[in-house]
Amino acid sequence: MKDDCIFCKLANGVIPTHKIYEDDEFSVILDANPATKGHALILPKEHAANIYELPDDTVAHAFQLAKKMAAKMSDKLKADGFNIVQNNGETAGQTVFHFHIHLIPRYKEDKQLIGWKPLKLSDEELSEVENMLK
Amino acid sequence: MKDDCIFCKLANGVIPTHKIYEDDEFSVILDANPATKGHALILPKEHAANIYELPDDTVAHAFQLAKKMAAKMSDKLKADGFNIVQNNGETAGQTVFHFHIHLIPRYKEDKQLIGWKPLKLSDEELSEVENMLK
Repeated sequence: MKDDCIFCKLANGVIPTHKIYEDDEFSVILDANPATKGHALILPKEHAANIYELPDDTVAHAFQLAKKMAAKMSDKLKADGFNIVQNNGETAGQTVFHFHIHLIPRYKEDKQLIGWKPLKLSDEELSEVENMLK
Repeated sequence: MKDDCIFCKLANGVIPTHKIYEDDEFSVILDANPATKGHALILPKEHAANIYELPDDTVAHAFQLAKKMAAKMSDKLKADGFNIVQNNGETAGQTVFHFHIHLIPRYKEDKQLIGWKPLKLSDEELSEVENMLK
């Protein structure tokens, strides 16, 4: 546990929170500033700033838990859809630097728009990016 | 492979695409309507409509691959941040019903806002949701 990390304290019960699930590796808590009703966060108990610092085994378990929670939450909350979002770095919208997965139940009437405006790239421009990455 | 599924065809090379990675289980291709330069999709070769239909082992491998690709892409593209997004259901913004993970490199200057407007919920309202879910 990292002493100055608020999510370490929430994940390990040092600060009380709205916890909806817990096992040896993770706590799942309600987001205090939810996008929608039921918006929750998967927090590993061991500190890692982002996905790059999270051990591969923990990555696997975290997203298997995301699958399980998404199914359970959709059922209990009668959600119409589900976003699983994981942000790395301030530029990507990460505000607390302890790895977390956003679990966001979606409802037909929720008025959130979790998406993006597509760029218009030509096939040549896409080929250029492909060559940089492959 | 599902015959009428465009992502099955892209993942299995039936339709040519901008592919940046491939192994036995997955293809990673550039999104044709990218949010940012480098926006890519992890596609399992076996059809699954969403995360609920994806076997647990494949969930684990898919997100371990997301971690690996995010690190590599951030390095090659000099990205400042990285969003990993997985949508389930039309209400959540899913438009092709073959499981996929969005890999979105972020840049200080990219002007995308991949986020949400928080609701204002009281502690009582959060407790109510907690009781529905735990």
